[in-house]
Amino acid sequence: MISKTMQQQIAGSSAIRAMFLEGKEMAAKLGAENVYDFSLGNPMTPIPEEFNQAMLDLIQTESSLELHGYMDNAGYPETRKIIADNLNKRFGTDFEGKHITMTVGAAGALNIVFKAILDPEDEVLALAPYFGEYRGYTSNHQGILKEVAPDTATFQPDLKDFENKITAKTKAVIINNPVNPTGVIYSEETIEKMASIMRKKQEEYGHEIYMVSDEPYRELVYDGNKVPFLTKYYDNTFVTYSFSKSLSIPGERIGYVAVSPSIADCEQVCSALSVANRIMGFVNAPSLMQKAVARAIDATTDVAYYDRNRQLIYNKLVELGFTCSKPQGAFYLFIKSPDADEKKFVEAAKKYHILLVGGTTFSCPGYVRLAYCVSYEMIERSLPAFEKLAAEYDLA
Amino acid sequence: MISKTMQQQIAGSSAIRAMFLEGKEMAAKLGAENVYDFSLGNPMTPIPEEFNQAMLDLIQTESSLELHGYMDNAGYPETRKIIADNLNKRFGTDFEGKHITMTVGAAGALNIVFKAILDPEDEVLALAPYFGEYRGYTSNHQGILKEVAPDTATFQPDLKDFENKITAKTKAVIINNPVNPTGVIYSEETIEKMASIMRKKQEEYGHEIYMVSDEPYRELVYDGNKVPFLTKYYDNTFVTYSFSKSLSIPGERIGYVAVSPSIADCEQVCSALSVANRIMGFVNAPSLMQKAVARAIDATTDVAYYDRNRQLIYNKLVELGFTCSKPQGAFYLFIKSPDADEKKFVEAAKKYHILLVGGTTFSCPGYVRLAYCVSYEMIERSLPAFEKLAAEYDLA
Repeated sequence: MISKTMQQQIAGSSAIRAMFLEGKEMAAKLGAENVYDFSLGNPMTPIPEEFNQAMLDLIQTESSLELHGYMDNAGYPETRKIIADNLNKRFGTDFEGKHITMTVGAAGALNIVFKAILDPEDEVLALAPYFGEYRGYTSNHQGILKEVAPDTATFQPDLKDFENKITAKTKAVIINNPVNPTGVIYSEETIEKMASIMRKKQEEYGHEIYMVSDEPYRELVYDGNKVPFLTKYYDNTFVTYSFSKSLSIPGERIGYVAVSPSIADCEQVCSALSVANRIMGFVNAPSLMQKAVARAIDATTDVAYYDRNRQLIYNKLVELGFTCSKPQGAFYLFIKSPDADEKKFVEAAKKYHILLVGGTTFSCPGYVRLAYCVSYEMIERSLPAFEKLAAEYDLA
Repeated sequence: MISKTMQQQIAGSSAIRAMFLEGKEMAAKLGAENVYDFSLGNPMTPIPEEFNQAMLDLIQTESSLELHGYMDNAGYPETRKIIADNLNKRFGTDFEGKHITMTVGAAGALNIVFKAILDPEDEVLALAPYFGEYRGYTSNHQGILKEVAPDTATFQPDLKDFENKITAKTKAVIINNPVNPTGVIYSEETIEKMASIMRKKQEEYGHEIYMVSDEPYRELVYDGNKVPFLTKYYDNTFVTYSFSKSLSIPGERIGYVAVSPSIADCEQVCSALSVANRIMGFVNAPSLMQKAVARAIDATTDVAYYDRNRQLIYNKLVELGFTCSKPQGAFYLFIKSPDADEKKFVEAAKKYHILLVGGTTFSCPGYVRLAYCVSYEMIERSLPAFEKLAAEYDLA
């Protein structure tokens, strides 16, 4: 018999898996070109050529025992230094290699951060709508996830509710910027206000309250928007990152944690991350990928590819009468469900072979998420289906 | 402030880290060729050429979005099938692809198994001497590790104590075969007796007691010895594996769990492993490596390399009067400390620039572990140092 917690977690997972299977079955029955699957956040832009070349060069020229061998649990010192220098150049920060821990993606990064800081029953605040995986990442370490209610007018955090939800048990706040699922960027003003509230609460309760920033979409921003770099606004900050989206390599599981040099007990915190990497069974981030991302550190993805998709689908949906705010970053669009029960809207969309994810997954019912990291041609083909869906709801 | 558990875990880790640093400092002071570091289990044999070629071919010919993209959390179906078929061919088992979950090394594999099966306060039995990391892997999931006392006459498990230690709270038994740190292989007779005791106890307590086998050294065996394949002896079995040692790629973190097709609730157990992979933040095993190990599934490492080392160091130590049983597998030698306090012996060895790990790490004080996965030449150079160490203890 599997554990009781896992039985619940399987039950919770089955809705998403059911949609995967339904999409596959639809494609088999109708032909893949007649199914419009907007359910997955899977990067679509080509892998930068310098990254491919970096892998080939490494395999052909490096000592293979070094290239594929063990290193410090925190990663190769050269890679950590290159990442620190790159962040400093781009954001005016003052990281050294020792502040960077290489991780098995951002999911691995968040888990070692929580392993390092959470005592049982500690509370972690998430700002709805948020990526549902944060629930498991928190409960893995016996933490308790608490939600800040969404402000559906702007999808910036509801700062009043945020302040009220911070208690003596609050150990961390997760910030995902740009936000999955809304595509909103929390502005510098928002971040400054949050930091100010958190500093006040730290003083009131006499212990650290950490900002834990999850930034896999950091480079995917449009219209010249800027994503504030959080260590510049608040000392007790962890920035977690993944190369999944910027290099289109989500299967390779390569990312890092950057610890603010001004964090309390910095040396102990960095040691804790390294030990957590080992104890949780990650041991270290995959070694070839550590060296390859370092060599291709200036490689960037083709943001224009996603931007073109964004314009096409956003403009069409607004024209059809759907309500959604224009995404500033990431590759998601958050649409207000024309049906009070968004599950019914998700089902209605399926009739026209459109696959969307209900907002309940993100603790924001009444909305659906559309992932536009798909081919431009698929979006074009899907537009008549959206027209029929809009007609069904008399949106025009 | 980091969590209280992590503060203890850092304190526990610092002894090993201190030895790493001491080794590096010694090498800097005395020259690397004058330090005999036998402390690390880092593979030394060359990476098989077909594995290198597999990586190059994949990068040069496969669709890069597929090669580095997301797949099912359990891994690519083709890789899982190839591994199942390979196990069936070698061991006469009847695995299908669905019984295989690709993991971030064996450490990741053990962690998702424990995540899947452990409820809080469940007990996991480990057979001393055992790999100390099992303590963290168990406590990560709120399990409690209990030890079976070592039988230092043979280093086969003490079956009397084993039977006594199984309680109504026992959920799993970890078996590491061949054993780190002794190099012993648990014989077929031992495994049959353990299985029989466990079946009796399952009936007595009315719930499953799982065998969890940790087999990164499965192929590293000498003198024609055989390692029993555990699913053939006991139904409720998980076999965890890593390609770290067989392909010399420990930094790449690629392994798997094979679930016995006869395990209770097989389908639910396999689902749980997939969900655990996702929730713990592994998400999936690194994608390029999944495809590369499948292509090079018949590649083997040069066991003769380690065997040559084994003969040299074992024969010399016995000749010098040290007490140790001849290893049958893996690349470790477990030596009886001539000093009742093995820590003093570890310190004495350091005077001659020999680095060994104390048996307390493996819950077996009074012994030290020597890892002979080093160059033959280093062993040759170290022999005069062992002579001096033996002389200090009047062993001759």
